Amino acid sequence: MQPHSKIILIGLGNVGRAVINQLQASDMNLEIIALADRTGCLVGQPLSTDLINLAVQSKATGQKLADLPEAQPLTNLEKSFTTNTIVVDTTATRDLDWKVALQKGCSLVFANKNAHSAPWLLASHLFNQPNVRYESTVGAGLPIIASLRSQVASGDQITRIEGVMSGTLGYLCSQLEAGVSYYQAIKQAFEAGYTEPDPRDDLSGFDVLRKALILARTAGWALEESDFTVEPLYDERLVGMPVSEFFNLTSLLDKTYAQRVEGAAQEGRVLRYMATITPHGGNIGLQAVERTSPLGSLQGPGNYFAIYSQRYNQIPLVIAGPGAGIEVTANGVLNDIIALLS
Amino acid sequence: MQPHSKIILIGLGNVGRAVINQLQASDMNLEIIALADRTGCLVGQPLSTDLINLAVQSKATGQKLADLPEAQPLTNLEKSFTTNTIVVDTTATRDLDWKVALQKGCSLVFANKNAHSAPWLLASHLFNQPNVRYESTVGAGLPIIASLRSQVASGDQITRIEGVMSGTLGYLCSQLEAGVSYYQAIKQAFEAGYTEPDPRDDLSGFDVLRKALILARTAGWALEESDFTVEPLYDERLVGMPVSEFFNLTSLLDKTYAQRVEGAAQEGRVLRYMATITPHGGNIGLQAVERTSPLGSLQGPGNYFAIYSQRYNQIPLVIAGPGAGIEVTANGVLNDIIALLS
Repeated sequence: MQPHSKIILIGLGNVGRAVINQLQASDMNLEIIALADRTGCLVGQPLSTDLINLAVQSKATGQKLADLPEAQPLTNLEKSFTTNTIVVDTTATRDLDWKVALQKGCSLVFANKNAHSAPWLLASHLFNQPNVRYESTVGAGLPIIASLRSQVASGDQITRIEGVMSGTLGYLCSQLEAGVSYYQAIKQAFEAGYTEPDPRDDLSGFDVLRKALILARTAGWALEESDFTVEPLYDERLVGMPVSEFFNLTSLLDKTYAQRVEGAAQEGRVLRYMATITPHGGNIGLQAVERTSPLGSLQGPGNYFAIYSQRYNQIPLVIAGPGAGIEVTANGVLNDIIALLS
Repeated sequence: MQPHSKIILIGLGNVGRAVINQLQASDMNLEIIALADRTGCLVGQPLSTDLINLAVQSKATGQKLADLPEAQPLTNLEKSFTTNTIVVDTTATRDLDWKVALQKGCSLVFANKNAHSAPWLLASHLFNQPNVRYESTVGAGLPIIASLRSQVASGDQITRIEGVMSGTLGYLCSQLEAGVSYYQAIKQAFEAGYTEPDPRDDLSGFDVLRKALILARTAGWALEESDFTVEPLYDERLVGMPVSEFFNLTSLLDKTYAQRVEGAAQEGRVLRYMATITPHGGNIGLQAVERTSPLGSLQGPGNYFAIYSQRYNQIPLVIAGPGAGIEVTANGVLNDIIALLS
């Protein structure tokens, strides 16, 4: 056992708060020594359970950490960075720089995808490091990163990764397949809270691209965004206008996607929004796959990852399941913490 | 990093030799300090690469370790058991007792299923131990044990495990589904080397039972064989006679299984030899599953494991892929070794 026993948690959104709950419910004997959001931080040696619970409740009801009388300025957080500390980033910000934490000997756990999907020059120091974990950045709690790392560490050569990595677009594909119009499917996904506030942020494929980049780099391939071709699930007619207007125009694409679904169905196929990643680059977009294939049997928001390698060269290693959700995402963070403790 | 740096490998069959190859090909800096088969052992501090390669070549050509002039009696092996040593069991024997190795502080890695599927009284000390790993006992190199352990360690409550855990019986189901007769399907599986020398050892479901027991116990359920119902894939008419005669009689069941396949097909279903495991016991046998379900899309010797838990309660965590094969089984052993080193 390494002497990790302290946790610093940055970000107290849904996932951050679920991490705290899961830590408290587990029998791991870990001390939370700091909590932070974008407005301030709480620091203690360790923080009392009462103060942690107060912070969780405040954030759950929309307050800022800075509203608590015990809050300190964010600049005080750095003092808590020590060698036996795990710093957990559950934010969605691009503004954090983890160099100081690493220099001070902290371990890092990321649910935030931004650091690992940044240009390689900025991101490379976060890959292939035993003290940096990022399971929840791809496929939520599914052990896809852990499995890839394990394969690489044991000397296997990854040759290709295929996957369905967006629960939102998976849901959309299932709805289109069921005969729902493009317009209705997007509206339903939006209303169910499955999409970003602007659904084009999902439909662009950019979120899938970031995940594909993280997988590629974990497999040992120093790819950049420009090494991928990405097919967005909308066209130029829906670019540029405000969200409200976008919704009104989506029915322009009803026929296009209905025809693609129909064309696939005539060949016994269904559409899936897939990423295919090789050492030299990747493709992201709609693919028509056989209805009776494992990918064809995938339903709704499920994620699916297939790893082909020197050792898994005929039948791939497949990991599938929910690729989004607060509890499973927090669970991925916990699994990373456990891996760092062992 | 724990100070593990030494490996003792017991068993030099196909898997044991592949473990040596994969260790040598990896950049892990591990010393092999002893090799053993049932006839003798080689001991060194460490063993030279030349002697290791000689042993591998001898075993590959059917010789015994005791035939080598450097061989020592098996009783000398115990002297190599020390705290910074990983002992790997790739045998298929029931005769080894690992208490001494554990008492001397060794870590253990098992590809051999027997120890973990023994009655609970004998097996319990091998579960829930950070220094005992056994990934390859179920699903070869698929990270099913690692994932279950991770879920349990992070405080998730496993509620059900379902799976197709026999590549041999998976192959048989695929052949029956393709219209091949029971007789022909078994004969083909036997001739392709997919079955045990007596195919009834596969058809009995006993191998699946052992794997199901290991998964149950990893999930935290102290089940015994008697907690399972097992449907064998033959009936009393094929019991008791020698293998050669068994083959002659298998066609007695051609009609039975053709009818079951046909009955399932009429409902859009296919037969899969499944294990379903709950905290209170399990069922092992043929199930008719929907053709377009993930299990229905499984082909040939592929394995499939679905974990349902408190956190994965709607969509399960699924791990699938080849559940047999020398390279992937050895890979599971390597992943266990890496986990012990981290």
